[in-house]
Amino acid sequence: MRPKIAVVAFGGNAMLPDRQRGLQAEQERNARRAAGLMVHIVEKGYELIIVHGNGPQVGNLLIQMEKAADRIPPFTLDVCGAMTEGSMGYMLERALVNELRRRSIGKEVASLVTQVVVDKDDPAFGSPAKPVGPFYSRPRARRLAREKGWTMVEDAGRGFRRVVPSPQPVAVVNGGVVRELVEAGRIVVVAGGGGVPVAVKPNGLLEGVEAVIDKDYAASLLAREVRAELFVILTAVARVYIDFGRPGQRGAPILTVDEARALLAEGQFPPGSMGPKVRAAVEYIEAGGREVLITKDSRLKAALANRSGTRIVASAA
Amino acid sequence: MRPKIAVVAFGGNAMLPDRQRGLQAEQERNARRAAGLMVHIVEKGYELIIVHGNGPQVGNLLIQMEKAADRIPPFTLDVCGAMTEGSMGYMLERALVNELRRRSIGKEVASLVTQVVVDKDDPAFGSPAKPVGPFYSRPRARRLAREKGWTMVEDAGRGFRRVVPSPQPVAVVNGGVVRELVEAGRIVVVAGGGGVPVAVKPNGLLEGVEAVIDKDYAASLLAREVRAELFVILTAVARVYIDFGRPGQRGAPILTVDEARALLAEGQFPPGSMGPKVRAAVEYIEAGGREVLITKDSRLKAALANRSGTRIVASAA
Repeated sequence: MRPKIAVVAFGGNAMLPDRQRGLQAEQERNARRAAGLMVHIVEKGYELIIVHGNGPQVGNLLIQMEKAADRIPPFTLDVCGAMTEGSMGYMLERALVNELRRRSIGKEVASLVTQVVVDKDDPAFGSPAKPVGPFYSRPRARRLAREKGWTMVEDAGRGFRRVVPSPQPVAVVNGGVVRELVEAGRIVVVAGGGGVPVAVKPNGLLEGVEAVIDKDYAASLLAREVRAELFVILTAVARVYIDFGRPGQRGAPILTVDEARALLAEGQFPPGSMGPKVRAAVEYIEAGGREVLITKDSRLKAALANRSGTRIVASAA
Repeated sequence: MRPKIAVVAFGGNAMLPDRQRGLQAEQERNARRAAGLMVHIVEKGYELIIVHGNGPQVGNLLIQMEKAADRIPPFTLDVCGAMTEGSMGYMLERALVNELRRRSIGKEVASLVTQVVVDKDDPAFGSPAKPVGPFYSRPRARRLAREKGWTMVEDAGRGFRRVVPSPQPVAVVNGGVVRELVEAGRIVVVAGGGGVPVAVKPNGLLEGVEAVIDKDYAASLLAREVRAELFVILTAVARVYIDFGRPGQRGAPILTVDEARALLAEGQFPPGSMGPKVRAAVEYIEAGGREVLITKDSRLKAALANRSGTRIVASAA
């Protein structure tokens, strides 16, 4: 029998919240907490694929590279993303192995360095908008723009910051490996930070791309590729709200894909936060997915038992 | 039929030689070169496991962390090792995928973040000897020793450097995943830098350890775990030499495991260079391995055709 598969996406801030400095002990504690949540899903009978974000982590690494730039040549953003797949994959995998041992669940974990193909013709490349890395002074920003071709934007009062494109993920380069591992019962940590973006050159070969892939879109793509039964998106709120922050705000326990699509079209969900999550959910359901669960970490257990969160489904049962 | 498996180990300096600064373009070129070599082995009909070193790469990362230490809390050595598994795994995997595409070989590649168990009672923990990271001034070295418990040694004229233990690898935490992937025909990049060292606590859970595992020993362990037919160790010389650098120096085209063991006992091979390689080879053959090939990258193709390198085997045919 084909196993039931769940894909879970959570943010890099789940492992390094804004209020923390990024001490390793903090990140390890956060990884333990995340591992505990993930095992709830395993205990529901799902085989598990985990996609984590890496925003704060790659930000710290870019600062470290910049500070040492006179001595060590900095890496491009794709390589930096791969490095956070290493650090976060390790911390998360170790925490998962320990959580599984604590509960005597005999599963192995595999953390993959993951290349994700993007399309060089994606309109995102025409308008880089995702800020990454440190704030720079005006002269340093000018120099980086000139020397490296970076697009820099001024952030009032804080200095200049690099912005990069955020294209759509098109394919996971070793998607076959992911499917094989999860079907064999492994917990797979994959496409961390949305995956390392690569593009296919005219000669068919891959090249690294300096961009950021939204981890919810990458997770949605994976959920479609492995035909997952469940797609869980962890975020900062317990459920999706309609008219959020306005009079009449109300949480939605369930939305059909048609309702979700209509609310997106109304502009109910801001582009930087709930928008991509609902869109990722819609794409998964449209491709034949069964169920999406959007909730926050502290409500995950209740949401899995149908007592919290927002479910997005093909049609009302 | 069970496939023929080869495990290959090569140094981090194959991807970042001393004479290079560590520019990304250089490392990518080196990765392409390494990928070309690896595909020679695939074309000989082997399924492939690749273990790379990470000495120069982790050294650069430790410098970057140190330079930004006033702003970003540095990671411990285990996490830094995992980060180089990310960067090098990505560069190598992309180069391998491209090389396979160029030759129309339909194989997927998987790069795993890899925890390798070491024994806290390993005598290496009593005498840390492996230098890592930047040189420090005396006051900074004193402070790091006090605050972090690091062991520092003075390197005449260059300053102080941290030394860490280099314990033996005992087990690959997700060895089952590696075996499964390679038997399914994937090229697996694993245990980069010798693997991220972890120890088993009295309660059975894993904890990170600040140590460095020799990549040749890690590769030997993997070769035994997957019962590889061939174990290739790439190094700086075309073959193993007896009486190296002395009158009567001679290359050994073939050694039985008994001969290799005797030469080791004679002190023929220095601890920092050929010693661990021959020892890694001996351990693999003693555990039932068929054949070890020690050679340099430019001689690999000839060595695979029996025209160069040193073979270490169980007994003379």
